[in-house]
Amino acid sequence: MEILSENAAFGGVQSVHRHASVACACDMTFAIYLPPQVADGPVPCLWYLSGLTCTHENAMTKAGLQAHAAACGIAIVFPDTSPRGDAVADDDAFDLGQGAGFYVDATQDPWAPHYQMNTYITQELRGLVQANFPIIEDRHGVTGHSMGGHGAITLALANPDLFVSLSAFAPIANPTAADWGRKQLSAYLGDDEAAWAKHDSTLMIRNVGWSRDVLIDQGASDQFLDLLKPEALSAALAETRTPSVFRMQPGYDHSYYFVSTFGEDHMNWHADRLLT
Amino acid sequence: MEILSENAAFGGVQSVHRHASVACACDMTFAIYLPPQVADGPVPCLWYLSGLTCTHENAMTKAGLQAHAAACGIAIVFPDTSPRGDAVADDDAFDLGQGAGFYVDATQDPWAPHYQMNTYITQELRGLVQANFPIIEDRHGVTGHSMGGHGAITLALANPDLFVSLSAFAPIANPTAADWGRKQLSAYLGDDEAAWAKHDSTLMIRNVGWSRDVLIDQGASDQFLDLLKPEALSAALAETRTPSVFRMQPGYDHSYYFVSTFGEDHMNWHADRLLT
Repeated sequence: MEILSENAAFGGVQSVHRHASVACACDMTFAIYLPPQVADGPVPCLWYLSGLTCTHENAMTKAGLQAHAAACGIAIVFPDTSPRGDAVADDDAFDLGQGAGFYVDATQDPWAPHYQMNTYITQELRGLVQANFPIIEDRHGVTGHSMGGHGAITLALANPDLFVSLSAFAPIANPTAADWGRKQLSAYLGDDEAAWAKHDSTLMIRNVGWSRDVLIDQGASDQFLDLLKPEALSAALAETRTPSVFRMQPGYDHSYYFVSTFGEDHMNWHADRLLT
Repeated sequence: MEILSENAAFGGVQSVHRHASVACACDMTFAIYLPPQVADGPVPCLWYLSGLTCTHENAMTKAGLQAHAAACGIAIVFPDTSPRGDAVADDDAFDLGQGAGFYVDATQDPWAPHYQMNTYITQELRGLVQANFPIIEDRHGVTGHSMGGHGAITLALANPDLFVSLSAFAPIANPTAADWGRKQLSAYLGDDEAAWAKHDSTLMIRNVGWSRDVLIDQGASDQFLDLLKPEALSAALAETRTPSVFRMQPGYDHSYYFVSTFGEDHMNWHADRLLT
């Protein structure tokens, strides 16, 4: 594992690393913020999954989460959103291929050889982080924005033993029913829609459930509301009586200003559940 | 004046504007954050001057100042660092020409027709901001990073009636004695070094002085210490008995992680002086 950068930040260290990924069969880059509290021993870890077009870098530089992580004593991992490189299949569209892995393990060509983001996040990178950084093994939480909010919810519900706490910012909430979802799930998983249900937050809340609680923020002026379909998820949460806080935030759009505005609330949400 | 973007952030609005500049004889872009307190009337205003290679956008997206501005009830203006455009003189080097205006009014060709950043900031943009946004006229402060820290100190000392409060992050502190300075001042102002002294924070502290106080943060692991020359400024502040807080911060480099880490302290410094 190669260190690409290290910067002091809020008393801790923000670093970026590159490693050869087995799951994705290419080099992968991720960032991790370690708060100052690691001087006293291992800390909990929050995974921040990013949205379409993003790398590890966008939230690392723009979401402002490090300040809150340092205040709480929680590490943050920022994975990339897809495999990368000249040898990796891609598409001209911004919402398919590189930068748009959708947090699934692809079964279809040309995607299957590299697009294994589900396995990469939940197994390979999880193990790599655990082995190389001072993280408490059973104190991981997950959040994310847009496609990453979709990733956070679907990965947590599928792996409740891996993630203690869960939140999301403007998640792609019902991808089997929206162009942000049907396009990618058919490309990566094929035309059998039964396989898609395991990667749809709304369907998983109904079919799998979440026994802990979840915080979701959504901007009421988000320019992608028709693609995100927050109403589907909020209805599913209510109908299944899932412990949840779903906040429709007036005036906010889909940008990182929205994420940074509510980042402190999310960090505190995770801290309340990871530090106990 | 054209609105390029508007985003809700921390209860206020972050917006970006383009206007035809008379001083710079080209279109100029700037950003302004208005905190939620403008609903109750005009607020003070902090000017954030950026460093080499930056536009209005870098600090706007990466410094995390909006959270603190919203907490304090202070607006922030993010000007560009130079004139821009195909008709504007430029240089292949990153530290001369576009992105490197150095906050001076150029007297030399080919720079003089557009590089009037001193006049642009202190007169034209100041007037434009005052006329178009709910800002209290005599409650402006100024800060900045690197070249922008140089701009903050030199513009404040030259215009104490315009700026009530002053701070800087890792300022280019003694440009007449460093390659970050001699190169640009000779290009923009010519070879007569007497003209440079009005644009050197260390010399101005000695020659002009500052009757209020100033906060300066400098990373001890800054990769550009030889070019910034913080020791020259700290000595000048001490020798002239200027009310000042000069903090050498162990471990921090020149990045926005350094700025964002200490951004809350700087905002509070300005708030304590602008809200009285």
